[in-house]
Amino acid sequence: MQVSEEYVGLAHGAGGTMMRELIEELFVGSYGSDELRQGDDAAVFSFPGASSNLAFTTDSFVVTPRFFPGGDIGRLAVCGTVNDLATSGCQPFALSVAFILEEGLPINELKAICASIASAAAEAGVRIVTGDTKVVGKGQADGIFINTAGVGFFGNQKPLSGSYCRPGDKVLLSGTLGDHGIAILQAREGLAFTSDLKSDAAPLNHLTAAVLKAAPNCRCFRDPTRGGLAATLNELASASGVNIMIDEVSVPVKDKVRGAVEMLGFDVYQVANEGKMVAIVPAEEAEAALMAMRVDPQGLDAAIIGEVSTTGTTSESRPENATHTRVSVRTAFGSERIMDTLVGEQLPRIC
Amino acid sequence: MQVSEEYVGLAHGAGGTMMRELIEELFVGSYGSDELRQGDDAAVFSFPGASSNLAFTTDSFVVTPRFFPGGDIGRLAVCGTVNDLATSGCQPFALSVAFILEEGLPINELKAICASIASAAAEAGVRIVTGDTKVVGKGQADGIFINTAGVGFFGNQKPLSGSYCRPGDKVLLSGTLGDHGIAILQAREGLAFTSDLKSDAAPLNHLTAAVLKAAPNCRCFRDPTRGGLAATLNELASASGVNIMIDEVSVPVKDKVRGAVEMLGFDVYQVANEGKMVAIVPAEEAEAALMAMRVDPQGLDAAIIGEVSTTGTTSESRPENATHTRVSVRTAFGSERIMDTLVGEQLPRIC
Repeated sequence: MQVSEEYVGLAHGAGGTMMRELIEELFVGSYGSDELRQGDDAAVFSFPGASSNLAFTTDSFVVTPRFFPGGDIGRLAVCGTVNDLATSGCQPFALSVAFILEEGLPINELKAICASIASAAAEAGVRIVTGDTKVVGKGQADGIFINTAGVGFFGNQKPLSGSYCRPGDKVLLSGTLGDHGIAILQAREGLAFTSDLKSDAAPLNHLTAAVLKAAPNCRCFRDPTRGGLAATLNELASASGVNIMIDEVSVPVKDKVRGAVEMLGFDVYQVANEGKMVAIVPAEEAEAALMAMRVDPQGLDAAIIGEVSTTGTTSESRPENATHTRVSVRTAFGSERIMDTLVGEQLPRIC
Repeated sequence: MQVSEEYVGLAHGAGGTMMRELIEELFVGSYGSDELRQGDDAAVFSFPGASSNLAFTTDSFVVTPRFFPGGDIGRLAVCGTVNDLATSGCQPFALSVAFILEEGLPINELKAICASIASAAAEAGVRIVTGDTKVVGKGQADGIFINTAGVGFFGNQKPLSGSYCRPGDKVLLSGTLGDHGIAILQAREGLAFTSDLKSDAAPLNHLTAAVLKAAPNCRCFRDPTRGGLAATLNELASASGVNIMIDEVSVPVKDKVRGAVEMLGFDVYQVANEGKMVAIVPAEEAEAALMAMRVDPQGLDAAIIGEVSTTGTTSESRPENATHTRVSVRTAFGSERIMDTLVGEQLPRIC
């Protein structure tokens, strides 16, 4: 892989292959650590004086518009980091909140965003323990950017990783695809595919905890945000050296979202979600995991959507063998197609 | 206190009283936790499964220009967070690095910044374990903003706090004041007070560890960044319910910096530093702490610059009594003046 461009482009932040190249060549290349190379949503490490591992993650939020049906940038900033922590199997514990504010931002908007941060943190059961505030001149930012970082602990839970998927495992999805991406697009462009579509932004740490209780051998979680389900599944397949097959008819999608993506020519598997979780679970625990999801208010539409299979090559050679892994979709008509990762940019500033 | 403005202004990010009002009313008011209320540079807390406390902090960096004599935004981003962690007495352990990039940023500049991050992290002995990348359109940011968050651990060291200062304690400063602020101003405005002034940006965790070894009862550290020494000392005085008196003649300032601040009408006590540490130490350990600083390459010009004293009111009533605390300077001529915290904005985007 090689970053061949001379300038940063929007696609470098889109969650697809160009972003992955930037991360691997520049960031891992310059200051790579084992955790960074691992490529999970949260870093997991032990440190002197702790009997349990620590999970640590960070995310910046630049979504536009900053208020949208179903949430705002403050809610997103809490949910995004809580969910990235939760993917590791940890219990999210404390968050930081750092603002970059543009001169001229109405104080009332900042107040509303702070109230959202407070209520999302309460929903997740995490505390905000540290923060930072920077202000830049008019025209040097776009209203408000928020970074949240977070730490979580494991107790007796073993840390999960995207590299743990095994042939025969089932793929679970906690609910409908594409709600966030289409809600944002609609709010931004003044489109009106449907009057009542909302972003799904929600903290999923209670859902992941319930799944782990019901399915203690759960391999991993991943939240399909930028790049959508396609990016998530391709990352998991690559990290584990496996293939993944999805059954199109089993994937929950709201009718109004399906209508919108068809009209726009989008691939619903590439649209961002902010309140959905993918879980990879051994076949014998899949039903129990599904029931656990469906009991959670965020998992009412959960479904088993596919299965992990072998690449056909020796599994010993992963992840060197990563490029040979494949994610496919079995369509309603019985044909198969590749579920590709987004290369460029679908919708900038989605989160 | 009350945020009475309708819009965010540059002064809300300047490290002075307007920023403090914003933090106290909006942030602490909306989602305050004990750690946030404590107001230290790093949050310190225990969590299930750890026998030692954890320190956690965050900082966003928006400095302009992004390359300047003595460093760049990447070096600053590592040093700033390492130093905020170090103020708590912990050993900085792992950092996150999150980028907000403006479309059109030259990839070569990003590469140079990544190399700086790598070398500053190596200098500090911390690992970069997690990250995030967002890209916004041309004109929606200013080249590059970086957020770093960090975690550190304590081992047998007791966490420090700005509320631990006691009358009779000595105030130590690890080196000359104002180098960073004046170097940035000079780079930004094309001024040329002096040809060889550099930012002091440096990680100070080795220096603080050496001081703690030599002066085990050290009360606290604080790095005088935005708002300068004046903001730092007023925060410490307020948090501890004490007065602080500084001896002007003992404060190390480079001649060229002194010349520049006089010409510009700045107060050198309000100019930002990025590689200096204030330590408050019991009188009987002050000499040992000073020697420990001077042995460190970052502390060659260290000095004892003042003393903590009682406010004259009962010390029981702090910090309710906070507004009655006072930081003063005894001038070379023997007179005394108040060392005020910056109210508004001196130099935007200094870090």
